[in-house]
Amino acid sequence: MPESPIRKLVPFAEEAKKKGVKVIHLNIGQPDIKTPKIALDAVKNNTIEVLEYSRTEGSEQYREKLAKYYAKHNILVSAKDIIVTTGGSEALSFAMGSIADPSDEIIIPEPFYANYNGFATAMGLKVIPVVSHIDTNFALPPIEEFEKLISPRTKAIVICNPGNPTGYLYSREEIQKLAKIVKNHDLFLVADEVYREFTYDGKEHYSILQEPGLEQHALIVDSVSKRYSMCGARIGCLVSKNSELIQTVLKFAQARLSPPTFAQIASEAALETPQSYFDEVKEEYVARRNLLIEELEKIEGVKIGRPQGAFYCIAELPIENSDDFAQWLLEDFRLNGETVMVAPAAGFYATEGLGKNQIRIAYVLDREQLKRAVRILKEALKSYIG
Amino acid sequence: MPESPIRKLVPFAEEAKKKGVKVIHLNIGQPDIKTPKIALDAVKNNTIEVLEYSRTEGSEQYREKLAKYYAKHNILVSAKDIIVTTGGSEALSFAMGSIADPSDEIIIPEPFYANYNGFATAMGLKVIPVVSHIDTNFALPPIEEFEKLISPRTKAIVICNPGNPTGYLYSREEIQKLAKIVKNHDLFLVADEVYREFTYDGKEHYSILQEPGLEQHALIVDSVSKRYSMCGARIGCLVSKNSELIQTVLKFAQARLSPPTFAQIASEAALETPQSYFDEVKEEYVARRNLLIEELEKIEGVKIGRPQGAFYCIAELPIENSDDFAQWLLEDFRLNGETVMVAPAAGFYATEGLGKNQIRIAYVLDREQLKRAVRILKEALKSYIG
Repeated sequence: MPESPIRKLVPFAEEAKKKGVKVIHLNIGQPDIKTPKIALDAVKNNTIEVLEYSRTEGSEQYREKLAKYYAKHNILVSAKDIIVTTGGSEALSFAMGSIADPSDEIIIPEPFYANYNGFATAMGLKVIPVVSHIDTNFALPPIEEFEKLISPRTKAIVICNPGNPTGYLYSREEIQKLAKIVKNHDLFLVADEVYREFTYDGKEHYSILQEPGLEQHALIVDSVSKRYSMCGARIGCLVSKNSELIQTVLKFAQARLSPPTFAQIASEAALETPQSYFDEVKEEYVARRNLLIEELEKIEGVKIGRPQGAFYCIAELPIENSDDFAQWLLEDFRLNGETVMVAPAAGFYATEGLGKNQIRIAYVLDREQLKRAVRILKEALKSYIG
Repeated sequence: MPESPIRKLVPFAEEAKKKGVKVIHLNIGQPDIKTPKIALDAVKNNTIEVLEYSRTEGSEQYREKLAKYYAKHNILVSAKDIIVTTGGSEALSFAMGSIADPSDEIIIPEPFYANYNGFATAMGLKVIPVVSHIDTNFALPPIEEFEKLISPRTKAIVICNPGNPTGYLYSREEIQKLAKIVKNHDLFLVADEVYREFTYDGKEHYSILQEPGLEQHALIVDSVSKRYSMCGARIGCLVSKNSELIQTVLKFAQARLSPPTFAQIASEAALETPQSYFDEVKEEYVARRNLLIEELEKIEGVKIGRPQGAFYCIAELPIENSDDFAQWLLEDFRLNGETVMVAPAAGFYATEGLGKNQIRIAYVLDREQLKRAVRILKEALKSYIG
């Protein structure tokens, strides 16, 4: 298993905290937003006496309600097309195991969520990256770039939409381009859509399962973690109209028996979260993003991939190595007793050498902290370069 | 992924139920025992506002308390030797991924819990079975049988103690024999000890981590599922004094971020379960086992592996194929509108052809139902053979 790009920094952050330094975390996608009360209350009010295994594929009732949730997002599926998983993580792991055999290849636009590589490696698959660029906000690479990489061993294209770590939201036209490729070459198209609700600037998310004719190719990876700020629940799901693929996923699910019961209760109740919750959360994220971008743009030599979704942003810094810089921030730099922890971006690239001067910032902090964090970054860069 | 041996029967059970037949389940290890109130209450009384990721390795507080639980069982470990997992299932999966590389071999006495094979296959490992026999209650096969199977690719021996599906409890002497083999050949010894508390007839469980000198070889797979009748929690753990091994496990754990938070709250509270709970549960299981064995012994031609632990028992029937018999029970046999569902034992063997006339019975039903179930079996056998 490859190591997470952030993990290497953890001991330095712990050391700094021991010395009394306040570390502002820009490195982790753990929202500070409150979990909907309706979800938390459902767990408090449960009347379980024997905490039994749930159904392997997730409780019937939850999956029925999930199908209705998807219908509201113009994704027409039924309970039988859904397998509930232990977090989006398990959904990814089952997806990797189900779309390909060991030594097969999957193409992923980079930078991508580092654990894609972890789960692919654990299943014996080879990740073939196709480069997307900060200058185009990490838009979909041209079709030719994908086609150059397709081999007889290629089994799928995997995307994250809206993207972690880029915040890029694929347009309908981009999804249609991908649809064309996977249909032409008979591949699966796996889309991690866990940030579906978090789209900004009036833009709407277009799911791979909204695209007609993609039913046999499309596999959605989903999770309640970010949607309802309940990362600790560990509930996700896989969705596909391809029943053969769902049967394969089910075999992986059977081996681990069932997803957690309390968390399914919370997740089922969370589906009743009012739209006003999302409106407020979205407003907050947009305000944070705007503040972050505005402040980052004031720093000389910093380039930003402008995010239209999720709550991440890649920034290119006027430095050579963001691994060293991130460690230096934790070890040596303080502004009024504070420093920041950032995620070096090289870990989000599979191509050696790419992203070395980039970092990922998660804007899951209140604006006041976010503003202080960018100020620290600014002063730190001055001192680091100078 | 290989299919679970019970799964093939599920559609037949569902069909029978649709027709109004009552199906008594002897096939599944889901206890009917109530979950300790202290565990359920802790979840009800939680004061979480943001349901965050827990630590990847499990909450510090829970792991500290787990270490104390183990100390009570003469297993001397500290929090850093423990990684909390999503059920025993994930513990098994991480164990398989951490003790060996793809194409390596692990030796397991058969019959064994069918999902061992599933997780091994998913990690690319090869399961090498060593046969244990019903005539010796499935005692440890002789050392020579193990040594014959050890190759340069052998990385570990995996046992389940007390055993699923056999109910066999390994003695201290048997554990010491295994210790000798793994030390001589520098292998890991993985013990699934999830039924630790369920030992009968005055016998005590002897853990692989009680055996001096085995610190670098021993890896315990554990779970709260059966201990506190909380299978739906999905909390387990891996325990080892081998810090290098724990570091490898941690990498798998990092990829899936964290174990479920609510379930950890329940599991932590469950550690305060009074001894009287276990005394009562044990008394109940012993009474069920005694009834089951007594009734089964009355059936001509039935041979039983007498269990001293867990809540399973393998029975050999005077038939040729228990897959066919189990299906016939569900499709064609009724006694006063009832039938039974059993687990055909061939699925618990890796050696083709073994266990074909055996079934596994889980005694997790009240005595009244258990008695009726064995009566149905008896009448069914008469009718099936005749």
